[in-house]
Amino acid sequence: MSFNTFGRVFRFTSWGESHGPALGAVVDGCPPGLAIGEADIQPWLDKRRPGTSRFTTQRQEPDQVRILSGVFEGRTTGTPIALHIDNVDQRSKDYSEVARAYRPGHADYAYDAKYGFRDYRGGGRSSARETAARVAAGAVARLVIPEVRIRAWVSAIGGDAIDGQAFDDAQIDANPFFCPDAAAAQRWEALVDGARKSGSSLGAVIECEATGVPAGWGAPLYAKLDSELAAACMSINAVKGVEIGDGFEAARLTGEGNADPMRPGPDGKPIFLANHAGGIAGGISTGQPVRLRVAFKPTSSILTPVETITREGAASEIMTRGRHDPCVGIRGVPVVEAMMALVLADQKLLHRAQVG
Amino acid sequence: MSFNTFGRVFRFTSWGESHGPALGAVVDGCPPGLAIGEADIQPWLDKRRPGTSRFTTQRQEPDQVRILSGVFEGRTTGTPIALHIDNVDQRSKDYSEVARAYRPGHADYAYDAKYGFRDYRGGGRSSARETAARVAAGAVARLVIPEVRIRAWVSAIGGDAIDGQAFDDAQIDANPFFCPDAAAAQRWEALVDGARKSGSSLGAVIECEATGVPAGWGAPLYAKLDSELAAACMSINAVKGVEIGDGFEAARLTGEGNADPMRPGPDGKPIFLANHAGGIAGGISTGQPVRLRVAFKPTSSILTPVETITREGAASEIMTRGRHDPCVGIRGVPVVEAMMALVLADQKLLHRAQVG
Amino acid sequence: MSFNTFGRVFRFTSWGESHGPALGAVVDGCPPGLAIGEADIQPWLDKRRPGTSRFTTQRQEPDQVRILSGVFEGRTTGTPIALHIDNVDQRSKDYSEVARAYRPGHADYAYDAKYGFRDYRGGGRSSARETAARVAAGAVARLVIPEVRIRAWVSAIGGDAIDGQAFDDAQIDANPFFCPDAAAAQRWEALVDGARKSGSSLGAVIECEATGVPAGWGAPLYAKLDSELAAACMSINAVKGVEIGDGFEAARLTGEGNADPMRPGPDGKPIFLANHAGGIAGGISTGQPVRLRVAFKPTSSILTPVETITREGAASEIMTRGRHDPCVGIRGVPVVEAMMALVLADQKLLHRAQVG
Amino acid sequence: MSFNTFGRVFRFTSWGESHGPALGAVVDGCPPGLAIGEADIQPWLDKRRPGTSRFTTQRQEPDQVRILSGVFEGRTTGTPIALHIDNVDQRSKDYSEVARAYRPGHADYAYDAKYGFRDYRGGGRSSARETAARVAAGAVARLVIPEVRIRAWVSAIGGDAIDGQAFDDAQIDANPFFCPDAAAAQRWEALVDGARKSGSSLGAVIECEATGVPAGWGAPLYAKLDSELAAACMSINAVKGVEIGDGFEAARLTGEGNADPMRPGPDGKPIFLANHAGGIAGGISTGQPVRLRVAFKPTSSILTPVETITREGAASEIMTRGRHDPCVGIRGVPVVEAMMALVLADQKLLHRAQVG
Repeated sequence: MSFNTFGRVFRFTSWGESHGPALGAVVDGCPPGLAIGEADIQPWLDKRRPGTSRFTTQRQEPDQVRILSGVFEGRTTGTPIALHIDNVDQRSKDYSEVARAYRPGHADYAYDAKYGFRDYRGGGRSSARETAARVAAGAVARLVIPEVRIRAWVSAIGGDAIDGQAFDDAQIDANPFFCPDAAAAQRWEALVDGARKSGSSLGAVIECEATGVPAGWGAPLYAKLDSELAAACMSINAVKGVEIGDGFEAARLTGEGNADPMRPGPDGKPIFLANHAGGIAGGISTGQPVRLRVAFKPTSSILTPVETITREGAASEIMTRGRHDPCVGIRGVPVVEAMMALVLADQKLLHRAQVG
Repeated sequence: MSFNTFGRVFRFTSWGESHGPALGAVVDGCPPGLAIGEADIQPWLDKRRPGTSRFTTQRQEPDQVRILSGVFEGRTTGTPIALHIDNVDQRSKDYSEVARAYRPGHADYAYDAKYGFRDYRGGGRSSARETAARVAAGAVARLVIPEVRIRAWVSAIGGDAIDGQAFDDAQIDANPFFCPDAAAAQRWEALVDGARKSGSSLGAVIECEATGVPAGWGAPLYAKLDSELAAACMSINAVKGVEIGDGFEAARLTGEGNADPMRPGPDGKPIFLANHAGGIAGGISTGQPVRLRVAFKPTSSILTPVETITREGAASEIMTRGRHDPCVGIRGVPVVEAMMALVLADQKLLHRAQVG
Repeated sequence: MSFNTFGRVFRFTSWGESHGPALGAVVDGCPPGLAIGEADIQPWLDKRRPGTSRFTTQRQEPDQVRILSGVFEGRTTGTPIALHIDNVDQRSKDYSEVARAYRPGHADYAYDAKYGFRDYRGGGRSSARETAARVAAGAVARLVIPEVRIRAWVSAIGGDAIDGQAFDDAQIDANPFFCPDAAAAQRWEALVDGARKSGSSLGAVIECEATGVPAGWGAPLYAKLDSELAAACMSINAVKGVEIGDGFEAARLTGEGNADPMRPGPDGKPIFLANHAGGIAGGISTGQPVRLRVAFKPTSSILTPVETITREGAASEIMTRGRHDPCVGIRGVPVVEAMMALVLADQKLLHRAQVG
Repeated sequence: MSFNTFGRVFRFTSWGESHGPALGAVVDGCPPGLAIGEADIQPWLDKRRPGTSRFTTQRQEPDQVRILSGVFEGRTTGTPIALHIDNVDQRSKDYSEVARAYRPGHADYAYDAKYGFRDYRGGGRSSARETAARVAAGAVARLVIPEVRIRAWVSAIGGDAIDGQAFDDAQIDANPFFCPDAAAAQRWEALVDGARKSGSSLGAVIECEATGVPAGWGAPLYAKLDSELAAACMSINAVKGVEIGDGFEAARLTGEGNADPMRPGPDGKPIFLANHAGGIAGGISTGQPVRLRVAFKPTSSILTPVETITREGAASEIMTRGRHDPCVGIRGVPVVEAMMALVLADQKLLHRAQVG
């Protein structure tokens, strides 16, 4: 099926293709009375926008968002908020190559197998361009959870990881890689440049942390906070893995090594001595920082020819010319943040529904 | 909130606590006319059942399932199928310890923080005992997808991984660890015994593969096949990570190294030369085997005292006496299989809804 | 499809057939901490229970409810509440007649056309016996909305309506017809007796009023309070019409005649001078009593032979012997009340989710 | 809450206010490969469009629809279809009157009570202008159910009903009232003119019939076909009652009088000798025409001053100047048709999901 709505009470529905006239999102269930304007959304879109450095695709999209409904006199009214972004740089290139044969690793074959045909221009609906709609919706979600601070960063590119000891929050926005480790950022410059010049691509790992989440958010059992975060992240283009807290590392530990002991805090709430769990127990937030890691594969758009088949089933080869991200994970940072915000906003309202 | 329904058109709702009189699931949306009896469900429950070896908890639960509705003359009628399992071994132990203080790593504190109080007997709703309901529902799901074969196995315990070269399908059911590598199974015997005797616990990694999934299942963008699988697996107790295909390893690769080239197959369908993607592209199955990996943390029920706080917020220590799994991941195997079956059954019907 | 869950955040899922071993409901999303016991549910089931007077079916069902989960130490825990009712009087009659040919007006043919076959014993899933599950779930819903008082009554049987001027609240529970007009109740005794003795049946109109609903409940546009109530009532067996406020009478009025003028009330809230709207404007409650009317058709189970066809498509006749309600509308009273409670509880929580 | 999505697998989400820049709908779950263009949608919008006769509001809105996504080379791709309609005649009138005091019968007070404030321009989100989005989405739904023919008509205005004997299908589109009885249409001309000139308004009854619906559509118990239709119709502005088949008239009948006997038909399917049930039994279509009736109240926008209160709670009076429909029911005809199409398309796909 096609299912383009995310969330349970704070919901958004996205629409649009890479090379259609526009794309957008309808945000529904947003609390009324929140101060909002396009200026609250645009900075997050700018962060995701392509063409801002040589390390991202050179497609030029201003990604100017317009609010078409749901806001009156600068405040949300409680009715659906329509967010609209025009596509302006759908380069009138020749798509006959992509129309002819399937790009391995892309959704081309799967869409054809499912729907019988596909909008092949720039990947159509399966393009990562759709994530602009998520980022716009996520900006609204942030307004619903002012108590929460969300930040994500790239912690590895092509297997080259940051040094956790060198983590510097201030660095994240100071380099084109959202990298908190200045030395790593410098290494990555050469690394990504190399991939770009050779027409190759690189995978990446993104980490995301939300602080200020109170204990109690989460809807066990089938809308657990971690379950929703996993779904949210795995729905992002190119994502192949999600970890909460220590993730796969926890599978190597003993119960003692994995414990998050508690001590009494000044306000009756516990102070946790560790956070292996990533701030979630039994699918419910514990009051600790919510932490997750996401694996982005290298984009399949590369200059090296790869064996494939045509729509008619004949043997062929394909290589992907044109504008592409050498490391799509980089631009995933604002998208992961947006999905974190969307899940938390939804869970906050769900919690409020049941518990008041 | 509380949200105990999983699935979109093939749905199940589970209920029940560890130490209540019973637990169960209501399966809704199941196609009519499928031959079904309790004998189709019981074997999967037996696989998950505790007390079958010394490597699992010694709680004795026969986990006999009864079908209370939705079946007539041995066939599904298309109406809700109520599955009922009595709890028979709720040992009348003293729960004052667990009632008094929070067990770190368990859901105790989070449930209290959310709901204001909790059923502390055996973890109440947050107990892994609920997974019996999933396994029962999953057995129904399997009947909906007879074209698919699902098998899961343990690929690592406490960081000790199997040797992929030694993979032997026949071994999986031949040892108490669902381990496809006979040598690893032997090593794990000592490993898990050691943990059990010392009152410690171990994490584990489970892998699961579904073959026979045709190309085209998946509901992009927010019910992508991989997104649904991630949610399904992350909702299982003790799971902290999910990978599709190469998962985090893909983040270390280049686009060339991660490619899944295609060649024409005999029937017009492609033959894939690799399966880094785990059988899913753009959230839609490609016809390759669907593969995922799941990380189980070590259970937090250990004999070593851990710092904690009481319900009143005072400093304390707690250790978990009683019957527990030294490695909960082992019994996760039939649960992961069940979630795979539930997602695939749902996606099959969703695909049918839109595409016919 | 089969879709047996009602509600959005306060949800219940019902299961069970007329002649299966049991039926039940799973209530999910209920706020925690509510005092509850089987004694809070049983009285409503007793009100709906068959066999309490000669004017209802003589099937003897004690309809004893058991709570199997979600309650601990007498309070809701916030987890799913499983409600279980055994069927005890599935008379071992001969069903070959109903299996052979379709009873016109019943769901027999439609179920066969949809599902390919059906559980024909007592109507299977399509039996009004399922409404016991609704009434049980509705009893839980009532606990969520203690500020609301719900009462329903029969306002007409077979076209013989009560005299609005004679409305006496105290009468409703004083006769077997839930009739607020003592004179009408007396007339109906003969009317229903006549239908019963001749093997005929009668339609009825039920009215329901909820007082104490604050202004602001309702989820426009597609979960408006009136829209949800209409769906809830129309899902009840034998219901063919739903009106909010003046309903069809409003279609005969002018704007002046239909106006509900407002005056300032003592607490800043308006005093309404009329309630043509039935307490709902724009899909949102206004603080006035919420009022609706529901039309029940006469049951199709009658002793007069009716033309029909067999499963094989041959011409035939059928008459319905056995135990049946001469006027199913009567026992609809607690069911309509339950659906009102379920909708209002859900809307209260939905409102709280968005607005706090 | 705010809930602006309708449908289960064929879904649409609408957005937009009366006086915002635009309004629209996102249709999701539509089958792929359907031939579609704006020309398939525009005629239905033209039918609903205001200002086409003196009997409707004189607001001039071309209601030109644009398809912004989900269509490629003239066919649906299976991805979300964004439908966009600009508002062009938001007259820059003075809204201070409506901002100051609540219009009784409108949603003004309820929205304020719920959300704390409201977009008062033309009723904001509660305006019937939103039904343009429904009609556009309904036009897409029609393409999903080519086997079904839907037609609606006005059967009464202000209590003056058509003569069923004079029913003439060809008349429906031959007069500005969608009236199938030429004589009634003539009477209504004077009737509606009178209301218009005196600044009054009139209620109306609309009937709708869908032929060609096969037996088997409907999702019992809580998404029964009749239940979904009731919800769909009751969600339309100004609707206060819904009847399926004989509706409230059935409540006056006996079981014999209400019977729909069956005879064998030429193709093994039954021929029904009556259709009291309106083509639905047990919530499932029977293959007969699906019939319903809907009551529209007179619009509350009238020139006669009505008592009301101000936002501050002071006593006041209000009358509604400006452009309004003297009988909103008339323009409800294409809206009821659209909701019928939307429900049937959804149920067709739901049926396909479960039964194949």
